[in-house]
Amino acid sequence: MNLDAAMAAAIVQSERVKGRTYPNPPVGAVILDSDGEIAGVGATAPTGGPHAEVVALRRAGERAAGGTAVVTLEPCNHFGRTPPCVDALIDAGVAAVAFAVADPNPAAAGGAARLAAAGVRVSAGVVADAVTGGPLREWLHKQRTGKPHVTWKFAASVDGRSAAADGTSQWITSEASRADVHRRRAAADAIVAGTGTVFADDPALTARLPDGSLADHQPLRVVVGMREISPDATVLNDDSRTMVIRTRDPHEVIQALTDRTDVLVEGGPTLAGAFLRAGAIDRILAYVAPILLGGPVTAVDDVGVSSITQAHRWRFDGMQAIGPDVLLSLVPN
Amino acid sequence: MNLDAAMAAAIVQSERVKGRTYPNPPVGAVILDSDGEIAGVGATAPTGGPHAEVVALRRAGERAAGGTAVVTLEPCNHFGRTPPCVDALIDAGVAAVAFAVADPNPAAAGGAARLAAAGVRVSAGVVADAVTGGPLREWLHKQRTGKPHVTWKFAASVDGRSAAADGTSQWITSEASRADVHRRRAAADAIVAGTGTVFADDPALTARLPDGSLADHQPLRVVVGMREISPDATVLNDDSRTMVIRTRDPHEVIQALTDRTDVLVEGGPTLAGAFLRAGAIDRILAYVAPILLGGPVTAVDDVGVSSITQAHRWRFDGMQAIGPDVLLSLVPN
Ligand SMILES: NC(=O)c1ccc[n+]([C@@H]2O[C@H](COP(=O)([O-])OP(=O)(O)OC[C@H]3O[C@@H](n4cnc5c(N)ncnc54)[C@H](OP(=O)(O)O)[C@@H]3O)[C@@H](O)[C@H]2O)c1
Ligand SMILES: NC(=O)c1ccc[n+]([C@@H]2O[C@H](COP(=O)([O-])OP(=O)(O)OC[C@H]3O[C@@H](n4cnc5c(N)ncnc54)[C@H](OP(=O)(O)O)[C@@H]3O)[C@@H](O)[C@H]2O)c1
Repeated sequence: MNLDAAMAAAIVQSERVKGRTYPNPPVGAVILDSDGEIAGVGATAPTGGPHAEVVALRRAGERAAGGTAVVTLEPCNHFGRTPPCVDALIDAGVAAVAFAVADPNPAAAGGAARLAAAGVRVSAGVVADAVTGGPLREWLHKQRTGKPHVTWKFAASVDGRSAAADGTSQWITSEASRADVHRRRAAADAIVAGTGTVFADDPALTARLPDGSLADHQPLRVVVGMREISPDATVLNDDSRTMVIRTRDPHEVIQALTDRTDVLVEGGPTLAGAFLRAGAIDRILAYVAPILLGGPVTAVDDVGVSSITQAHRWRFDGMQAIGPDVLLSLVPN
Repeated sequence: MNLDAAMAAAIVQSERVKGRTYPNPPVGAVILDSDGEIAGVGATAPTGGPHAEVVALRRAGERAAGGTAVVTLEPCNHFGRTPPCVDALIDAGVAAVAFAVADPNPAAAGGAARLAAAGVRVSAGVVADAVTGGPLREWLHKQRTGKPHVTWKFAASVDGRSAAADGTSQWITSEASRADVHRRRAAADAIVAGTGTVFADDPALTARLPDGSLADHQPLRVVVGMREISPDATVLNDDSRTMVIRTRDPHEVIQALTDRTDVLVEGGPTLAGAFLRAGAIDRILAYVAPILLGGPVTAVDDVGVSSITQAHRWRFDGMQAIGPDVLLSLVPN
């Protein structure tokens, strides 16, 4: 197996643990033996547990000697709750280490240099884009800015509507898109909606599996707005924890979530507009369905733009088919 | 060169002549010599001129003998203004013929059978999807239905707006998208707009090259609506011909264009809505820019849907990046 394919396998590992490794990053690792066969895979264990490399090394056992460790993040070089991963790699006798992204955290960095000094062949930047734009996107943002990464997700028809004229919106997007949203919810730390959505739809705001049951990991539910919501609102049920933030200021919301990494804003249009006007969105995910609706209900109304020269300019950083729908990903330009 | 690559080259040939071959289809052909090298290429000449195979055979000369003819459409088997292409292929001594799409026209069909009877190896369906969804899309539709193929094209922000709140819309999409629209205009037979667009924007509705000069081929310009437009309107200038149809009925418009093949409806929202409600659109091309605008101006308003169950359901049959924008293609489900 070549390095790119091994890194793809490491990415799959990391995506499985996304949302459950706080404050550690969700990292994936693959150990190839000296013949290039997979000897072990691993991902970051929940807080306090071993890092991905250590999990994968354990599974590989003797076969790691002379092999290659393929990791989504530069192996750490510091004593945290666990000993440095570089020591484990050197002790296991790996001949080479390939990683996607250098560790931006000064305390943990220096792993590559120490490995090289110990005679291990090191390659950096292997399939880096897939990792920086994928499983480590939110964690890297947090490291760089000190703030949670905020994704605004919306679903709309190809003519930009989020409901028909009479308000009905079940369903605009396909089962495949809705399952994708639930996977993202399960990987997120918090999911934010305005009181308007709670009053209109009484949503659960939980991450559910295709059979309707709850996913293992539930994000914190966050309701934003000055109005008091009913104690009977579904969003207050026992399926997950809920934070009610009585403000209309997106920055206050982000402040309250400052220890989180991956925040998903699900709307509605008023809240989404407020976040966009405040410059508080780091990524937009648009699930676009191949249908036409027309009418007055759009996914966002007022983004603070009156003339074309003031348009918010973003950049597409991904497009993919999801069942019959298209998912467009945008980042600030 | 393998057959798929040769067919791709034949498609490029056919796209160059699109819009200029009426009533013949825009066909492309590539002759490979017996070593599999390109010996000649060709496309349908303007009306009355030779077909693509004949053009390509002439260029290939002696090298066609023992070679392979790769053609986007099944070679014709009838005397029209020109002798049957199958005769030319047999006379040239080609050993094999590969084509993408069978000729749906009963008068012209039977070419494959005659070639096979003459001992030529025939392969049908080579890269057929790229041809049926590409250069022959509109012509095949016309053969099947007897009516012109109608494409509605719109440009919008990712939140579905076709202008900012103050009406400014220059430019939502990039230069690359606008150049793509002009290429499509140059390949179309007619381009349709409502009187509202003529009053609001005074557009030229011509096909222009990136330097602003007129393309070789200009589509017929069609203005639809009951109001009289000014004799000074730019759309009435000498750069192309113009038809003013005083109706609000899309079917009357299509009736008036019944001898055309490829019709492009460019809007605005009122006209586009009327065509959509009438079921008169065969393809939607959405140029989506990575910007947010908000506000009241959408690319289409009333598509005759009040509840989600009545949504017009389409199917994405293509998505591609065009410069910084995304082009989504939809066909009826
Ligand atoms: N298509 C989608 O992806 C999607 C997603 C979610 C919801 N929706 C739809 O959205 C509709 C609800 O729309 P909505 O706009 O009322 O919902 P909303 O955005 O969830 O809630 C609006 C409320 O948020 C509060 N708020 C927070 N920050 C604000 C600010 N800066 N400015 C103004 N208000 C602020 C206000 O509540 P207070 O008055 O309490 O302060 C306001 O009334 C529902 O029909 C739902 O189905 C669609
Ligand atoms: N984003 C884009 O891709 C795009 C493309 C084109 C235009 N636009 C914008 O669209 C705006 C103009 O909007 P618009 O809606 O007024 O333009 P429009 O659709 O071009 O013209 C509307 C007119 O079409 C006539 N019409 C034809 N069939 C009709 C029917 N079945 N029902 C009602 N009217 C019918 C009516 O004129 P009569 O009263 O004369 O009968 C009506 O007033 C401009 O600002 C332009 O920039 C945007």
